[in-house]
Amino acid sequence: MGDQSISRFPVPELDDLPEDIRDRILAVQEKTGFVPNVFLVLAHRPDEFRAFFAYYDSLMLKDTGLSKAEREMIVVATSACNQCLYCVVAHGALVRIYSKQPLLADQLAVNYRRAPLSDRQRAMLDFATLLATDSGVIADNDIEALREKGFDDESIWDIGAITAFFALSNRMANLTAMRPNDEFFNMGRIA
Amino acid sequence: MGDQSISRFPVPELDDLPEDIRDRILAVQEKTGFVPNVFLVLAHRPDEFRAFFAYYDSLMLKDTGLSKAEREMIVVATSACNQCLYCVVAHGALVRIYSKQPLLADQLAVNYRRAPLSDRQRAMLDFATLLATDSGVIADNDIEALREKGFDDESIWDIGAITAFFALSNRMANLTAMRPNDEFFNMGRIA
Amino acid sequence: MGDQSISRFPVPELDDLPEDIRDRILAVQEKTGFVPNVFLVLAHRPDEFRAFFAYYDSLMLKDTGLSKAEREMIVVATSACNQCLYCVVAHGALVRIYSKQPLLADQLAVNYRRAPLSDRQRAMLDFATLLATDSGVIADNDIEALREKGFDDESIWDIGAITAFFALSNRMANLTAMRPNDEFFNMGRIA
Amino acid sequence: MGDQSISRFPVPELDDLPEDIRDRILAVQEKTGFVPNVFLVLAHRPDEFRAFFAYYDSLMLKDTGLSKAEREMIVVATSACNQCLYCVVAHGALVRIYSKQPLLADQLAVNYRRAPLSDRQRAMLDFATLLATDSGVIADNDIEALREKGFDDESIWDIGAITAFFALSNRMANLTAMRPNDEFFNMGRIA
Amino acid sequence: MGDQSISRFPVPELDDLPEDIRDRILAVQEKTGFVPNVFLVLAHRPDEFRAFFAYYDSLMLKDTGLSKAEREMIVVATSACNQCLYCVVAHGALVRIYSKQPLLADQLAVNYRRAPLSDRQRAMLDFATLLATDSGVIADNDIEALREKGFDDESIWDIGAITAFFALSNRMANLTAMRPNDEFFNMGRIA
Amino acid sequence: MGDQSISRFPVPELDDLPEDIRDRILAVQEKTGFVPNVFLVLAHRPDEFRAFFAYYDSLMLKDTGLSKAEREMIVVATSACNQCLYCVVAHGALVRIYSKQPLLADQLAVNYRRAPLSDRQRAMLDFATLLATDSGVIADNDIEALREKGFDDESIWDIGAITAFFALSNRMANLTAMRPNDEFFNMGRIA
Repeated sequence: MGDQSISRFPVPELDDLPEDIRDRILAVQEKTGFVPNVFLVLAHRPDEFRAFFAYYDSLMLKDTGLSKAEREMIVVATSACNQCLYCVVAHGALVRIYSKQPLLADQLAVNYRRAPLSDRQRAMLDFATLLATDSGVIADNDIEALREKGFDDESIWDIGAITAFFALSNRMANLTAMRPNDEFFNMGRIA
Repeated sequence: MGDQSISRFPVPELDDLPEDIRDRILAVQEKTGFVPNVFLVLAHRPDEFRAFFAYYDSLMLKDTGLSKAEREMIVVATSACNQCLYCVVAHGALVRIYSKQPLLADQLAVNYRRAPLSDRQRAMLDFATLLATDSGVIADNDIEALREKGFDDESIWDIGAITAFFALSNRMANLTAMRPNDEFFNMGRIA
Repeated sequence: MGDQSISRFPVPELDDLPEDIRDRILAVQEKTGFVPNVFLVLAHRPDEFRAFFAYYDSLMLKDTGLSKAEREMIVVATSACNQCLYCVVAHGALVRIYSKQPLLADQLAVNYRRAPLSDRQRAMLDFATLLATDSGVIADNDIEALREKGFDDESIWDIGAITAFFALSNRMANLTAMRPNDEFFNMGRIA
Repeated sequence: MGDQSISRFPVPELDDLPEDIRDRILAVQEKTGFVPNVFLVLAHRPDEFRAFFAYYDSLMLKDTGLSKAEREMIVVATSACNQCLYCVVAHGALVRIYSKQPLLADQLAVNYRRAPLSDRQRAMLDFATLLATDSGVIADNDIEALREKGFDDESIWDIGAITAFFALSNRMANLTAMRPNDEFFNMGRIA
Repeated sequence: MGDQSISRFPVPELDDLPEDIRDRILAVQEKTGFVPNVFLVLAHRPDEFRAFFAYYDSLMLKDTGLSKAEREMIVVATSACNQCLYCVVAHGALVRIYSKQPLLADQLAVNYRRAPLSDRQRAMLDFATLLATDSGVIADNDIEALREKGFDDESIWDIGAITAFFALSNRMANLTAMRPNDEFFNMGRIA
Repeated sequence: MGDQSISRFPVPELDDLPEDIRDRILAVQEKTGFVPNVFLVLAHRPDEFRAFFAYYDSLMLKDTGLSKAEREMIVVATSACNQCLYCVVAHGALVRIYSKQPLLADQLAVNYRRAPLSDRQRAMLDFATLLATDSGVIADNDIEALREKGFDDESIWDIGAITAFFALSNRMANLTAMRPNDEFFNMGRIA
């Protein structure tokens, strides 16, 4: 059997962490029922941890423009491009919960083109996966294609920024061989 | 919402099918509790259906060499390379059932390198995914690498033949936009 | 000099084969004048052999829809994508024979875009090579493009199924390092 | 002539920005002599701005492990993989300044394999560019290869985290078509 | 049916050509029995024609180091990488003639790894096809691998320079849609 | 530190060169103020040297059709595709000199899509980079796209032929690890 640790790098004990980080982790634990491993793995570097989650919060917790389900759909589809196990599994759980479509996360993880999406959502994921995999070719007409589907500038920025943030997150997870908590795999599967 | 049909091509009614095909489908239904869509979608062409399932049976139902779980692991890992929703989901269910590891299928579907595999299984999937994606470069040393992990010729043929068969199956599924039955998504998740 | 055997795996003697397989091989030998190596290499596994050739017959021997030459053109163009020496050479011979264009097989093997094709045939091979190399991206508009060139659903299925079957065949040939018989290289070259 | 704006998205006026952001920008301007466009382009979203630069500071301003020049070398080599004009040009200036090798940035931008690097630095950039372009394949032996060149765990995390952060940064720059300030192109060229 | 012209660009009449070019073409015609289309297509630009064939002669007509057959093998294997119909077909004829192996050209055109090559020739083509397709990654150890197979510096330069010259030639052929003369397809097939 | 030689192969002394080659080199030195390393590296093979520079002169010194700046833009953009340090740096200097745009070369080297180009120039580089990287797919409609931007047949040939010639040149530079002279890096940067 392979390695069952949650990171290739040292993982701090809760008691050894700065108070603000420990507090955040305990709050998540209370809300979710367990501590997602990303919190423990990234806590190895407190300053990076703080910036990472501040960035995350500013992109993923917004109530305007894209829906919460759509934000998570972008995460799953682009993380699949990067073969990032942690993000596909953890955010797949969130796709199921927010979309109330228990099959959607697996569809997006394997091939978003086979998921039951609106034309608007399909365009959103076409753009996000292109930015994820070959950002250098993005041109004005790619932006224009989103506008034609009804996305305004703020939503286009969100699609791009979420994709960009998870380009970082996916690489941190692949660098550390971050293991998703077992709990994520089944969350939200029973409607 | 997207298309919810199970195929881009006409799907026959059970009553209109040749008797041997109808019998096979009814037998599967009795055993599994539902009719996997691949049976209905491929029944559009009875002769191809018969050859497809004869091939499938000869490769996947064997009791020697590779375990049943390992055979299904090859299917999931290589079908993920081909972004084949049907095969990843349907055979992911079989990976869970045969391996009794409820998380393994999702790990293989996203990135088999992040799954808890033995060195032998890792080598098996390295070979299978190379054959799936770039078969022209296969050389004697790739075969030799499998022998060094303890695979004999019959098992190496099996690894290759299963990969080859699902190269066909994945393309039929992507051609027809074959939709996995909802039942597959949750099978075997609760240990 | 490299290996001149016809397979990396054991090749059975005719006398050791089940009668139905031996009969089929002898029938081919009588018709063609020699035994194509694919029959001997795959006879290592009788059940797979039977399924393989049943599948092959159901796709390649039909008299409706695509012409026999067009079926073989799909084989050569997609097998070239997979760098499959056996299929390009053996089915190149059939392209020459059925099309009565002695140069066509070599043109398709190197670059089908430089072959003298009708618009319809070009669209057929654009689709087949996309399905061969990147089937996950196939979408409804790819199917629609074929319909616009006059292909009906049965012909579209045939294009796809032939491509899918040779995705299997190419991988078996690259797995086994299947050597094409010398006879194939020159068949049909003299009009 | 093409568009000479610095972003595809609205760029705020300094006076309209929150005080902490304006202060940071004015401080940079005083130190550098001009305001790098990345500050103005990202200030469109104050919260993301704060997280971005907090992350940046925690990775790029450290005095331990990798040298400042090496950190910037990682940025230029990986940003070249992503065809990110802003990062290659702006951080190319920093490579020149920190390394005191006025040609190094251009060498890294075109092909780091042709730059005059130590074996250790070559291994560092081999890893960084692999993580940048194909992070899913990273395995334990890639980490081990860095250890063999003398990198400790903290430096390996730094190589990976800088690469990951600029995966984000490159995508934001390609999303916004962020234009590098003219001043960067010539900074540090005259030793 | 497709276009049967030999070039997308104007093709000069022999009588309109400068004397030296006409003389060269007539000499080739006398020796070969026909005028290879590359001479007529490139004669559209007399100065480029002169440079092209001077370069060609200096690389391909040498009597030292690589054999004539080996030089042509490099051309066919690398031109196949570039899907260049003209060069694969025309130089395939020369491979057959010089090697006296009537099957070798087709083997190289589809997959040089399936051709009956010595280890030395296999290393030669591994290097040539890497230089043809991804020259930026060439490093000292690639050169060293050739030396270990017994190639001296002059032969290594030849392998590289022939590959480089046909990188040019393949692109001219694909630019002009240069059609190979029918005569080439069958030359040297009958031993 | 890495190797600081200008070639992996022997570099001749000026005094040992044939007179015509020495004269050409001295003339370049007089005009430019130094001897560009390409002259010394390629002089290892006098006949190839003569053909190379005759070809170069016929393509790059013309006064009709494309401007000198545009010819050099093609060189830089396509050489960047091939990660050719020598050509990007040396011809980047010429882009700066001929275009009188001191930033243009760096923009083209990193991502020509981010350079301030006219639509016509953008189409020119779209075609050139496609021919450089995937010439087999070039079809009539790619040629037609250039005609629609106002390019005549002679200019289209020039775009293609310059790209083809530098496909050769880039590979010779990557084969030899040709080092650009230090002087090139800063030429033309100060307007």
